[in-house]
Amino acid sequence: MSKIPESTQLGKQIVIEDDVTIGENVVIGHNTIILKGTQIKDNVTIGCNCVLGVQPGNSQRMRKISKGNTQLVVQSGTQIGHLVSIYSGTLIGENVFIGDHASIRENVSVAEESVVGRAAIIELNTTIGRNCTIQTLAYVTGDTTLEENVFIGPCVSMSNDKYMGAQSYSLNGPHIKKGAKIGNNASLLPGVIVGMNSIVGAGAVVTKNVEDNITATGVPAKKINF
Amino acid sequence: MSKIPESTQLGKQIVIEDDVTIGENVVIGHNTIILKGTQIKDNVTIGCNCVLGVQPGNSQRMRKISKGNTQLVVQSGTQIGHLVSIYSGTLIGENVFIGDHASIRENVSVAEESVVGRAAIIELNTTIGRNCTIQTLAYVTGDTTLEENVFIGPCVSMSNDKYMGAQSYSLNGPHIKKGAKIGNNASLLPGVIVGMNSIVGAGAVVTKNVEDNITATGVPAKKINF
Amino acid sequence: MSKIPESTQLGKQIVIEDDVTIGENVVIGHNTIILKGTQIKDNVTIGCNCVLGVQPGNSQRMRKISKGNTQLVVQSGTQIGHLVSIYSGTLIGENVFIGDHASIRENVSVAEESVVGRAAIIELNTTIGRNCTIQTLAYVTGDTTLEENVFIGPCVSMSNDKYMGAQSYSLNGPHIKKGAKIGNNASLLPGVIVGMNSIVGAGAVVTKNVEDNITATGVPAKKINF
Repeated sequence: MSKIPESTQLGKQIVIEDDVTIGENVVIGHNTIILKGTQIKDNVTIGCNCVLGVQPGNSQRMRKISKGNTQLVVQSGTQIGHLVSIYSGTLIGENVFIGDHASIRENVSVAEESVVGRAAIIELNTTIGRNCTIQTLAYVTGDTTLEENVFIGPCVSMSNDKYMGAQSYSLNGPHIKKGAKIGNNASLLPGVIVGMNSIVGAGAVVTKNVEDNITATGVPAKKINF
Repeated sequence: MSKIPESTQLGKQIVIEDDVTIGENVVIGHNTIILKGTQIKDNVTIGCNCVLGVQPGNSQRMRKISKGNTQLVVQSGTQIGHLVSIYSGTLIGENVFIGDHASIRENVSVAEESVVGRAAIIELNTTIGRNCTIQTLAYVTGDTTLEENVFIGPCVSMSNDKYMGAQSYSLNGPHIKKGAKIGNNASLLPGVIVGMNSIVGAGAVVTKNVEDNITATGVPAKKINF
Repeated sequence: MSKIPESTQLGKQIVIEDDVTIGENVVIGHNTIILKGTQIKDNVTIGCNCVLGVQPGNSQRMRKISKGNTQLVVQSGTQIGHLVSIYSGTLIGENVFIGDHASIRENVSVAEESVVGRAAIIELNTTIGRNCTIQTLAYVTGDTTLEENVFIGPCVSMSNDKYMGAQSYSLNGPHIKKGAKIGNNASLLPGVIVGMNSIVGAGAVVTKNVEDNITATGVPAKKINF
């Protein structure tokens, strides 16, 4: 049995499995499910109908990771919306905001003060720096790095598999440097680097690395001069 | 305690909070949650695992709105799918259809006979006219206006923040006039106006206003002549 | 009352309606809802907060199909994630993997060994061959055919309505032949054929048929020579 502090504000029909740790002043919405081993720190708010702490191990089709940390840890002050799924083996930092319908897989870290938008999806092995904004319906693929203060516009798409399953390939998502901004519905190809403080235009298709401090737009994305 | 009419067809494990009003002949699916103050009119059908009437106020990261109406009102004859979230302070008109996994935020109005597709998302402060179709996975950003009879294709993306958080900016979504049609996966930039009965091609990136009665395609979108 | 075998591993607060058939060694997560008439075969795993076996008939706005099969059948060895919705009248083959937040409508068949990614959506009347991969947030429209070994990248978009509701039109999705691969966030127009083993680049907009064994990129998509 998990110990639930008296300060917890519990909705109805919540399922809390064994070995769950809950800090002080946590709010958990109706029908939310917190699976084995999840750690929720102080002042975390969780919406309704969520599934937190999903174990990835039972799927044959999802890549395996070997990693010490197999728990989901949600640091203090973080807010999680409704109908959200988050996997175990992931660390959500302090004061993060996660929108409704979002999904975050295993072996991800989302640093403090970042925002994961409504219905945004973050795949495995991905690192999100502090104070990033990932907007609604954006897709952050696996094996991706976002440094701090990165802005990912709504519906941005990324990929990490150059050969789309046709050849053996070391999966490699984009690397987006500090302060870069990606416009809505842009597409980033596997392994591209977007330079510091650079801007990628809405709908651009980034096939090559983007230098620091430039703006790139179009299909394929090219530097523009103002 | 909320009063539930005898004509209500209730699924199992439903949570109905206080101050909820329910009309005649309403159907509510299993595990659905109806939060404080929500008003459901006659002949409304709601699917399973929904969360209706979410209060936006408790999130520090989502913009605040100051507005009299803080309830969710769902007018008669409307059908809501499964796994849907809708915020308070929003008005859903008569005979609207809202697909599964859709999400609609606060201070939105969706006029009668409109369709909000499966997994489509409508952000705050947005007005949808009557008889609009917003297709699957389309993203209607905040501060957007769709006049009547507008068609938004699947996976269309919009943005409302010209500077992507870099500067203070009055957020301003697209304005789409009567009868305009936006093709699938098109991208609309902040504040663009799409003219009456105009057509935007699939995958187009609309960076400037589109006149009435034309077809615009490409990146950036340009008028084409047939 | 549905008969639930002793070998079933049931979570909490599950709703199983009448006339549901469940095979041996099935796992069903907390809060999941299995609606009338659904058939779950042996060794199927279902996550939490799902809605399976949705009857399409009660919506005026969704197209009707006339078809003998009105049940959802999930064949043996298939794994279904969390927060998933699947309609009745659909057949999910053996050893299929369906990601969290995915949605599959009625009159769809997904053949054995295929993967339907996280938050991917498959509309009605669509046929998915064996060993296909449909990645995260991809949108497979109605009336679409994917032959075997097809790869659909993340955030790919398709449409099936040439006139976007403006004229009467026989809806017609893309036809994607054996072994073809569609890059992330590409857009496919109604009725286009993508040839065998061909590759469509990320962000491409496919407005015309693509021959066998070529690579097509850009807006509109054109054959490229290496």
